[in-house]
Amino acid sequence: MFGIGGDDSNPSFESSAPCNNLGFLQKNNNLEEKISSFKERSSKDLLDNSDRDSRFRRTETDFSNLFARDLLPVLCFRFTYEIAPVFVLMEQLTLKKMREIIGWPDGEGDGIFSPGGAISNMYSVMTARYKFFPEVKTKGMTAAPRLVLFTSEHSHYSIKKACAALGFGTENLILLSTDERGRVIPADLEAKVIDAKARGCVPMFVNATAGSTVYGAFDPIHEIADICEKYNMWLHVDVRLIEIRFHGGLLMSRKHRHKLRGVERANSVTWNPHKMMGVPLQCSAILVRERGVLSGCNSMCAGYLFQPDKQYDVSYDTGDKAIQCGRHVDIFKFWLMWKAKGTVGFEHHIDKCLDLSHYLYTKIRDREGYQMVFEGEPQHTNVCFWYLPPGIRDMPDGQERRDRLHKVAPKIKALMMESGTTMVGYQPQGDKVNFFRMVISNPAATRSDIDFLTDEIERLGHDL
Amino acid sequence: MFGIGGDDSNPSFESSAPCNNLGFLQKNNNLEEKISSFKERSSKDLLDNSDRDSRFRRTETDFSNLFARDLLPVLCFRFTYEIAPVFVLMEQLTLKKMREIIGWPDGEGDGIFSPGGAISNMYSVMTARYKFFPEVKTKGMTAAPRLVLFTSEHSHYSIKKACAALGFGTENLILLSTDERGRVIPADLEAKVIDAKARGCVPMFVNATAGSTVYGAFDPIHEIADICEKYNMWLHVDVRLIEIRFHGGLLMSRKHRHKLRGVERANSVTWNPHKMMGVPLQCSAILVRERGVLSGCNSMCAGYLFQPDKQYDVSYDTGDKAIQCGRHVDIFKFWLMWKAKGTVGFEHHIDKCLDLSHYLYTKIRDREGYQMVFEGEPQHTNVCFWYLPPGIRDMPDGQERRDRLHKVAPKIKALMMESGTTMVGYQPQGDKVNFFRMVISNPAATRSDIDFLTDEIERLGHDL
Repeated sequence: MFGIGGDDSNPSFESSAPCNNLGFLQKNNNLEEKISSFKERSSKDLLDNSDRDSRFRRTETDFSNLFARDLLPVLCFRFTYEIAPVFVLMEQLTLKKMREIIGWPDGEGDGIFSPGGAISNMYSVMTARYKFFPEVKTKGMTAAPRLVLFTSEHSHYSIKKACAALGFGTENLILLSTDERGRVIPADLEAKVIDAKARGCVPMFVNATAGSTVYGAFDPIHEIADICEKYNMWLHVDVRLIEIRFHGGLLMSRKHRHKLRGVERANSVTWNPHKMMGVPLQCSAILVRERGVLSGCNSMCAGYLFQPDKQYDVSYDTGDKAIQCGRHVDIFKFWLMWKAKGTVGFEHHIDKCLDLSHYLYTKIRDREGYQMVFEGEPQHTNVCFWYLPPGIRDMPDGQERRDRLHKVAPKIKALMMESGTTMVGYQPQGDKVNFFRMVISNPAATRSDIDFLTDEIERLGHDL
Repeated sequence: MFGIGGDDSNPSFESSAPCNNLGFLQKNNNLEEKISSFKERSSKDLLDNSDRDSRFRRTETDFSNLFARDLLPVLCFRFTYEIAPVFVLMEQLTLKKMREIIGWPDGEGDGIFSPGGAISNMYSVMTARYKFFPEVKTKGMTAAPRLVLFTSEHSHYSIKKACAALGFGTENLILLSTDERGRVIPADLEAKVIDAKARGCVPMFVNATAGSTVYGAFDPIHEIADICEKYNMWLHVDVRLIEIRFHGGLLMSRKHRHKLRGVERANSVTWNPHKMMGVPLQCSAILVRERGVLSGCNSMCAGYLFQPDKQYDVSYDTGDKAIQCGRHVDIFKFWLMWKAKGTVGFEHHIDKCLDLSHYLYTKIRDREGYQMVFEGEPQHTNVCFWYLPPGIRDMPDGQERRDRLHKVAPKIKALMMESGTTMVGYQPQGDKVNFFRMVISNPAATRSDIDFLTDEIERLGHDL
């Protein structure tokens, strides 16, 4: 019945539907009937398929009904309690648990799942602006003084995108210098805050990155929080790591959590279970310490969705906090995974990835033909390195060597893609020519995979 | 192997994995091997389950491998060509086809799939701003004059959310008056444009709604486009209809497409296949007539993703057009549905919903106890009506009657939820007290469902 038209008297539909002449509204009346009908279908169609042909005929019919009649409300909805009571509660519980792990007292605060870390970061900037200059919501940016924001030169580009989109302008995002490991230098932040104030600007927002995109570096949150308190700025912590499915899960690992110390002092936190925790994209949350700011920032109280005269506590209608209207049910994947693996399971998952990156680091640190981009053990699972083909190894340092080395990683990656064996990203950073950036995020990877990777790099790059 | 730790020598993993001592990187080397391995699994595990117990054991093991080793790259990625070549091409082809249907010459232009209609509308405002005031991207809103935007008082609240978020301020969004059917009055737009200019503001953007949230009304696009051309404003058409899964698909119906005439004159169009076309949420696209503006607006050229020295044509890397980084693969659902149903299938689907709403309208138009919110056949599948319990029917028009009628729809909806039979939305609009707003979007609904709905309303509301 789903789809291609057909009319109501279509006999094949009437005879295959479980409730004959009843439409889908009536069908939901009796939960018991639904369950027993599901059981019947399960046992009939999914297991007892000794007669394959008839099974396929039945399955085809059932799927069309299933889609149009049963599954649709699960896959697509607004976050009003009446439409999605279970998911609304799942989201509330999970967000509270996440805030507890961050370390906010009693897990108090607010939050929402968003379509990815970039949008979560955008929420943090919007929320900060609303906290300090609520009139911008109604009057626009001209109601505020010239606002400036700060983030590491190594931070994710989504902060810059947010500044462009939200009307701050990318020139008002001030990039902070980092040490040789890619960590923000707190003194540089304070100097730039003082300088901005001297120029008549109002410093409003600082983004600290926990697990930077390229080096996997952790900005010193405590020192940055001190400066934010001193100058009355919003502190956001972007608990991120690069590559599609990474990080944020570090909060879940007792062994590695110390890298995030101070995160409880943040005003807001981006946490991406679709990264280090392995939840399929998209699954990202923005968490806000102070209640009410997120709602205040985004609510528009659309009459057709959020009626005050509903028969339940409308504080469960979380949809008006979002810049979206309908939302994808990202919470369900995360909730299921957490239930299945447990906090301890996530912890093992994360520790496993970090063990593997440690293995890669120790393997190539002293191996001929490799050079690390920065000294010392990486803080996270990003291992950044150059491979030097034999023809380059003995060349004197200088422009010619740099030019040749710059072309090595792109060439090896192209050869990898051509032979279809593996793929690893590269990039330049500042004055450093193209280097490989290997990020371990899949706990199904093995030491044998790491060995295979280095063998491939050497096989394909040896003669360059 | 996925998940809870385990180490590489785990014998149960080694023996159940299809490639024994090889890690997942090696496993992908041979496509033929992958296919035959998949076929083998399919025939073994999915069909030949005469021995149920062993089937379940095998299935469990396979799922864990499947997740970590095969499916992950499909579910989560950035839109760079190297990571998602098939989806990138699917998106390009589908967006071109959509632009052809809109009526732009040769399907030229640009576009991107976004996490919902609200975000698509936000893209339209951002893109318009970039077209007229590109310096806002770097310098912020202070680089522009005071900009004003226009939308119907009946339009979706996402335009207002976009104005708040992007730094325009909701007060600079000017609401347009509508006729009794909820359609924008073009003369009111022109008068308000002239007034805004007289106040020193710069009119920049007009949103026309095709299928408004409440009444399902279609703003007169041609007349609005004339005014936009005259005053050099960006015309966006929000091809939307309310409720989770609606509309946008009207473009696909030859019978009803005339309601959208003039849409080809828009500078940008929001098209939500997750609405009228029945694609599960989320699936929304923003389409832009002029090439280059969308990219120019959002690109940041992050070094770690978008290297110019890649070995393929990097114009296929569409990710930098988005405000997101990683994106959900919404295109795949839509592409599959389009392939399966065909354009004709979507057309039938839409016509079916409109037939059903016509049935509801004609049924209650002259029925005792019902009153339509506006006269005449609804333009779309929204049927807006009051149910008047017998005790109210003979009351004289006045405040007391209004007060009582205002409480009827909430009470009936509450009773519906308590008895678990059905649910239909209500809301007030302007000076009209709470009315029911029934929107038909599921083509699996039948006339019998409509009959059931009105019976329920009468059963539950009779004694109010």
